[in-house]
Amino acid sequence: MEYVTMAEGLEFSRVVLGFWRLLDWNLSTDELIRYLEECLDLGITTMDHADIYGDYTVEEKFGEAMKKRPDLRDKMQIISKCGIVYKSETARVKYYNYGTDYIIGQVEKSLKYMGIDHLDTLLLHRPSPFMDPEEISRAFETLLKEGKVRTFGVSNFLPDEFRLLKSYLTVPLITNQIELSPLRMGNMENGVMNLCLEERIHPMLWSPLAGGRIFTGQGEEEIRLREVLEVIREEIGAEDIDEVAFAWLFSHPAKPIPITGSGEIGLAERPVKALKYRLTPEQWFMVWTAVKGHKVP
Amino acid sequence: MEYVTMAEGLEFSRVVLGFWRLLDWNLSTDELIRYLEECLDLGITTMDHADIYGDYTVEEKFGEAMKKRPDLRDKMQIISKCGIVYKSETARVKYYNYGTDYIIGQVEKSLKYMGIDHLDTLLLHRPSPFMDPEEISRAFETLLKEGKVRTFGVSNFLPDEFRLLKSYLTVPLITNQIELSPLRMGNMENGVMNLCLEERIHPMLWSPLAGGRIFTGQGEEEIRLREVLEVIREEIGAEDIDEVAFAWLFSHPAKPIPITGSGEIGLAERPVKALKYRLTPEQWFMVWTAVKGHKVP
Amino acid sequence: MEYVTMAEGLEFSRVVLGFWRLLDWNLSTDELIRYLEECLDLGITTMDHADIYGDYTVEEKFGEAMKKRPDLRDKMQIISKCGIVYKSETARVKYYNYGTDYIIGQVEKSLKYMGIDHLDTLLLHRPSPFMDPEEISRAFETLLKEGKVRTFGVSNFLPDEFRLLKSYLTVPLITNQIELSPLRMGNMENGVMNLCLEERIHPMLWSPLAGGRIFTGQGEEEIRLREVLEVIREEIGAEDIDEVAFAWLFSHPAKPIPITGSGEIGLAERPVKALKYRLTPEQWFMVWTAVKGHKVP
Repeated sequence: MEYVTMAEGLEFSRVVLGFWRLLDWNLSTDELIRYLEECLDLGITTMDHADIYGDYTVEEKFGEAMKKRPDLRDKMQIISKCGIVYKSETARVKYYNYGTDYIIGQVEKSLKYMGIDHLDTLLLHRPSPFMDPEEISRAFETLLKEGKVRTFGVSNFLPDEFRLLKSYLTVPLITNQIELSPLRMGNMENGVMNLCLEERIHPMLWSPLAGGRIFTGQGEEEIRLREVLEVIREEIGAEDIDEVAFAWLFSHPAKPIPITGSGEIGLAERPVKALKYRLTPEQWFMVWTAVKGHKVP
Repeated sequence: MEYVTMAEGLEFSRVVLGFWRLLDWNLSTDELIRYLEECLDLGITTMDHADIYGDYTVEEKFGEAMKKRPDLRDKMQIISKCGIVYKSETARVKYYNYGTDYIIGQVEKSLKYMGIDHLDTLLLHRPSPFMDPEEISRAFETLLKEGKVRTFGVSNFLPDEFRLLKSYLTVPLITNQIELSPLRMGNMENGVMNLCLEERIHPMLWSPLAGGRIFTGQGEEEIRLREVLEVIREEIGAEDIDEVAFAWLFSHPAKPIPITGSGEIGLAERPVKALKYRLTPEQWFMVWTAVKGHKVP
Repeated sequence: MEYVTMAEGLEFSRVVLGFWRLLDWNLSTDELIRYLEECLDLGITTMDHADIYGDYTVEEKFGEAMKKRPDLRDKMQIISKCGIVYKSETARVKYYNYGTDYIIGQVEKSLKYMGIDHLDTLLLHRPSPFMDPEEISRAFETLLKEGKVRTFGVSNFLPDEFRLLKSYLTVPLITNQIELSPLRMGNMENGVMNLCLEERIHPMLWSPLAGGRIFTGQGEEEIRLREVLEVIREEIGAEDIDEVAFAWLFSHPAKPIPITGSGEIGLAERPVKALKYRLTPEQWFMVWTAVKGHKVP
């Protein structure tokens, strides 16, 4: 496993385990403990949560494992997110809340549910046109001072949103968790990946295989992509094309950190195996060209 | 009335009176004086002009009132704008002129027409792909030194245009006057509102009720908007839905300053009454969602 | 001729000779030498190359002239570019390579082919979503230290790409070579020209006459453009409408530097003759309005 320095004294594993679909994994508490141990054995030490995952239930389920095995905590970096409020009996629409008290309250719930005393990293889940950066700054300062959160970041932020927020904070933003895969390259075109390079931060990547579309998509771009991934797979000697897709991500100079959301160790292992490959510029642009359907300008 | 600090020693009233449609108000000079007194009694002290309003005639008409009642000047902050040249007998196309001499000349005309000796704020009316920031800087420095203009700003500037100009100036840009309303949210999506927050400036807002479309529009989004404004109106106890629309604007953390362009005191009073309301994040996004026709991401 | 200070001790002629189409000029080495002398006599001292021009053959052909007349070198500023790799027997797709060794290797080839010992300026030919700014920085530092390149710049970079790269470099970026003409105004709308003003750099312009479309295009915008260029031509007393088009560019406050790609001295002279004209704001926006087909906002 590679590890990436995210802040002073904080390293993330280059492959992160995401708990968005934890409920779908259908694991008992003991099975989840076993799975966490297997992941830790692979070197996957960074765990990605959010308050809303599983309709607000995932952190609690994860917490059952952590409460039974509190010794695992120190082997992990635990991330959570807040800010999205789902439509519910009490919320008439889905909305964002970045008020000071709301942020602090959500973190306290996350800690309680997960049975831990601090988050390694708190991310703001989505940018909001209504966010008050002063409110956010106050929340971050309080959480840091009280030892409840060690570092802070954002998710799905565009460059201007990132810079605006940063200009109000007394703490650094250590990452931007964004969507990126060969089939979703928008964040390489709207300045987000460039922002990460400029800010010297390493983006975390959700849906690095485009939710499986790399294997199953029947569109023209997906078919072209699979063909070229197969050509490169053979050249570099990888087992399957998903390793090539992960290698395409790992090769990027911003050192992106993909999140795997699988509950099977065989699948969690795929990006780890891909870590040994790096693509040449030619191979990297063969993928780009296949997806776009035209050559570079 | 709330007042917003725009610069050292300069406050704007949170509601501004705009003179774009002064001719439509059909007021005699004495009626205009009475109207100005009524507005000042409401606390509306900031007056928004431009050289071109009323086809270059509004400032002169306003000046007739000011010359009759020069005692009103010190109770007001007077803004004007320049830079747009309308197509006319002498101008073959509508165009922008930001030459040093042109800017200074237009300000001198504005002062003469309005019968005043200085503007509190001069705004560049629209960004121009042909503007020379050095020319603008020279004009601003001269106008400041000669006491003709106290502070400077822009209107309808995108972030890169704002930053470019700022990088040449020795005076601050204290505001960006832009279009914003629940029915025109573009400036919350293109970085302009974020720029205002980042620059710690308060945007002035033109067409805060989308030119009346909030009441009269028959499109789907306008109908949905009215429905949700009515729901919130009842919750917060406002008199009419325009107060909710203004409250939606007032609630934004950038502290935007809407401009009312009405010549009737009953209408000018509407945003002032709305000042006592602030929306919750849920209410704020109910408006957003109604206009967009879909939930937030 | 006007000259523009690009960096300490480096001036470009306000009109640059581009060698993209050198092969089409059909000149023998002696004819090319005579042409270079004629251009130098006009004051055109800056020569724009790229490794890939003429399918990697132009620099060598230019070098034949330079090797025969090495005394010409000191009268010139020589620019080249690298980074694009064309599809070929060895490259399966067109791609970009900005690895340290690749950049250095391409410059060394350019020097060898052209028979010179240094470039005045090296440009990165196109931005790449895969470029590693640390690799680029190392290449630039090495090339500078070894005396192989005096200054550095980019081509076709968007503002965020420019700023990202700049943030890694220990040398300044002295220009951005971009497309601009009355018929292609995109770089005045996407922030690129504004970036040049903000960075106090002077853009070099490729296709300043839109590849001749100004004369030959039969679209509505091209017909409208020719009509208005003709009106202005008569007003300013120019010989032909191309001078007006060049004057439109020369009038911009960013001091853009158009590249002429002609092998005939009569054509290379056209922009030089246009240097004596500057358009008024009204004339400048008459061109803008004709091309857009609507007045400014």
